[in-house]
Amino acid sequence: MQKQENPTYLKAITIRDISDVHSIREDIKKEMILILRVTPLAQRDVEQLRKVVEELYAVAKDASAEIARLGEERIIIAPSGIKIWRPEYDLK
Amino acid sequence: MQKQENPTYLKAITIRDISDVHSIREDIKKEMILILRVTPLAQRDVEQLRKVVEELYAVAKDASAEIARLGEERIIIAPSGIKIWRPEYDLK
Repeated sequence: MQKQENPTYLKAITIRDISDVHSIREDIKKEMILILRVTPLAQRDVEQLRKVVEELYAVAKDASAEIARLGEERIIIAPSGIKIWRPEYDLK
Repeated sequence: MQKQENPTYLKAITIRDISDVHSIREDIKKEMILILRVTPLAQRDVEQLRKVVEELYAVAKDASAEIARLGEERIIIAPSGIKIWRPEYDLK
């Protein structure tokens, strides 16, 4: 594990708008683990959601971060030191 | 970050039964990050869910792991090297 003085943060937030992508990009650079709720945006603007998800995949790729869906509501982004283990992602 | 040879795992699974607590306890000892979906059990047996959650809080405490709700559907358990940052946990 990391030293206590420099922990990894796990941050759970809601994406409400494409403008949220900027701060998410910063968090990805800081190697945070992100759990992003996309439901409010999905309900309001599917096209904007599509763009947000596309950008997040690009940012994650640049940062060698892993990205995965968590059910219908959320997306996980994990830095390269964290491996996402998915027994049932595609089921739920 | 950790060395690549020894990554931290993030595992997203569904708790279906109190018997699942055994393997979850092992995963907590291995310092995995766990995202546990509790909805199916919540729908089937609220009393059993209560017991499961109680046990998980006890196991997490013993392991100095952090535990938090993620919306209505999920529980996060993070080992001591990971800090859960919660801007809106109690909102959603």
